[in-house]
Amino acid sequence: MNLKIAVLSGDGIGPEVTQESIKVLKTIAEIYGHNFEFQEALVGAIAIDETENPLPEKTLNLCRESDAVLFGAIGDPKYDNNPDAKVRPEQGLLKLRKELGLFANIRPINAYDSLLDKSPLKREIIQGTDMVIYRELTGGIYFGQKKISEDGTVASDLCEYSKLEIERITHLAFKAAQTRKKKVTLIDKANVLETSRLWRRIVTSISREYSDVTLDFLFVDNAAMQMILNPSQFDVILTENMFGDIISDEGSVIGGSIGLLASASVGNGTALFEPIHGSYPQATGKNIANPIASILSASMLLEHFGLNNEAKQIRIAVDKTLKRNIVSVDINKETPSSTSQIGDVIVQML
Amino acid sequence: MNLKIAVLSGDGIGPEVTQESIKVLKTIAEIYGHNFEFQEALVGAIAIDETENPLPEKTLNLCRESDAVLFGAIGDPKYDNNPDAKVRPEQGLLKLRKELGLFANIRPINAYDSLLDKSPLKREIIQGTDMVIYRELTGGIYFGQKKISEDGTVASDLCEYSKLEIERITHLAFKAAQTRKKKVTLIDKANVLETSRLWRRIVTSISREYSDVTLDFLFVDNAAMQMILNPSQFDVILTENMFGDIISDEGSVIGGSIGLLASASVGNGTALFEPIHGSYPQATGKNIANPIASILSASMLLEHFGLNNEAKQIRIAVDKTLKRNIVSVDINKETPSSTSQIGDVIVQML
Ligand SMILES: CC(C)[C@H](C(=O)O)[C@@H](O)C(=O)O
Ligand SMILES: CC(C)[C@H](C(=O)O)[C@@H](O)C(=O)O
Repeated sequence: MNLKIAVLSGDGIGPEVTQESIKVLKTIAEIYGHNFEFQEALVGAIAIDETENPLPEKTLNLCRESDAVLFGAIGDPKYDNNPDAKVRPEQGLLKLRKELGLFANIRPINAYDSLLDKSPLKREIIQGTDMVIYRELTGGIYFGQKKISEDGTVASDLCEYSKLEIERITHLAFKAAQTRKKKVTLIDKANVLETSRLWRRIVTSISREYSDVTLDFLFVDNAAMQMILNPSQFDVILTENMFGDIISDEGSVIGGSIGLLASASVGNGTALFEPIHGSYPQATGKNIANPIASILSASMLLEHFGLNNEAKQIRIAVDKTLKRNIVSVDINKETPSSTSQIGDVIVQML
Repeated sequence: MNLKIAVLSGDGIGPEVTQESIKVLKTIAEIYGHNFEFQEALVGAIAIDETENPLPEKTLNLCRESDAVLFGAIGDPKYDNNPDAKVRPEQGLLKLRKELGLFANIRPINAYDSLLDKSPLKREIIQGTDMVIYRELTGGIYFGQKKISEDGTVASDLCEYSKLEIERITHLAFKAAQTRKKKVTLIDKANVLETSRLWRRIVTSISREYSDVTLDFLFVDNAAMQMILNPSQFDVILTENMFGDIISDEGSVIGGSIGLLASASVGNGTALFEPIHGSYPQATGKNIANPIASILSASMLLEHFGLNNEAKQIRIAVDKTLKRNIVSVDINKETPSSTSQIGDVIVQML
């Protein structure tokens, strides 16, 4: 298969971890006779530094012309602590999601047998956890109108959802559940929010088309608790943008490190694959970041194009590497391996 | 001291647990020579059933005339699963918060030595946790304009904050930090939300008046992770309404049960004291609910009026009861005590 892949490695540890994914993808291409073409482009703080634009036109065009985007990370503390910055790195990622129509962010969360004791949660709590979060990604309070009064004393963000926005991701979530444990849990705050009540109405109505799938509801506050008390109760979680952001980062503690969590963002055109962790500025350039989230995102990329065996081989190689305790410092403080060492071992395992 | 206390025990297990708090408060009044007068009023689903109004005028007036409100719980599944209900129990609580001007909800979270092994989190993770969450309670997306289009296909909720709303709770949080570990962590999503950037600006500026207190920032997604990875890093958490709702319920897993978590809501007039758990409909009438969250809320009530020793005696009695493993089924499935037994033991301990 020929695939044109745009590489947006971004800020902080983004470039380091993305480099390892590329190594893995190149190895897969060689072994299985595919042709993957990689083209790099700027995004985030580094794009602001060079072009004053967190998502240069050139980058967006490259993404549009590509089959997939391999994304690194975004964000820089010099913007985080400056609420007055007019341009911020995150705008690059948000605009990219919107422009590419990436309305569904898919985040699988599993407990790895070899890492059961690495989690802050007890082994018996996380054992058997196997869920996937469908987070709506181009709507809600992230993209609604933002206002600040002229004198700077009143600010607002609008959370808005339309039927169409809810329907399209709901179908994806139910279809996923059909291939899994046949359960969808909608997380919302329908006892307070009008948008949540719209979600509940539409999701309930769509659920009738999937009679083999059970639909459950959880208020987001309760969900934040249930995620920790009993994560294995979940199969497919469906939720809006902001709740999905919070709940999926919370869920990352189950696997033992956020450095393991991959995601796929899909929609109308080019799909995007990115680790859910951030740019982790303190680790930049130190060759200590965990590349596995990025490598598993590359595996999701292959799966997206039907290269299921290739995707699986990556997952198996990652599993083996974890079992051999070849892991980065986020998982093993005593004898950590470096970012590039882990990449090398995964490549060897393939 | 003379105190007039409005009792709004509400729905589900609310009445059962509140009854135990009243028992405890009456005992305190006897021992220390106070005069507490209790008057009951309707709120929530039960108020809708009887008056079609989740917060009858009579209830609101009683609260206004009282020194404090002892609140039980609110909510009924018959409304939760009906997104079309026009009147809902939660409106009673939300209106009460707004009408009484209860802008700050204060939620302490501790790990109890005797319960360290009851948490889904590992003992070494939670040991030493001692934080208090200051959640803004009368602003944000809870109270902004809600809209639904006539054809029911587009809904919105407005999240709005003003300088004044942020300032008043910020001062409370910093003052609390001064009496504690001298650290405030602001939880927001300033990389996306305009309201969060307003929070960051105002809180940063106020922090200069409290030079003995350190101010930290955490994005809410990261905070949801840090809460589980390393809860003892926190002292005072300051956050807006919705994030506070999610983060504090999440934090309840630290103590081993949400049935232990008390809260005080304070503002311009009458203060309100309530467990953070919900109405737990499945347990209603079974005498199995945990009354400790309610009893500790009563202790916060006494503290609010400067009855620090009395408040402390309740906390000591609760500690002793927990140590003797006299706990409800949420904490001990094998040999649980009933709601009223636990209340009785705490009364004896006083
Ligand atoms: C960087 C930030 C804007 C982003 C988000 O909130 O969506 C990130 O946290 C994520 O989850 O991908
Ligand atoms: C019942 C509900 C409206 C309420 C809230 O979300 O504030 C509850 O969850 C709480 O935390 O007190």
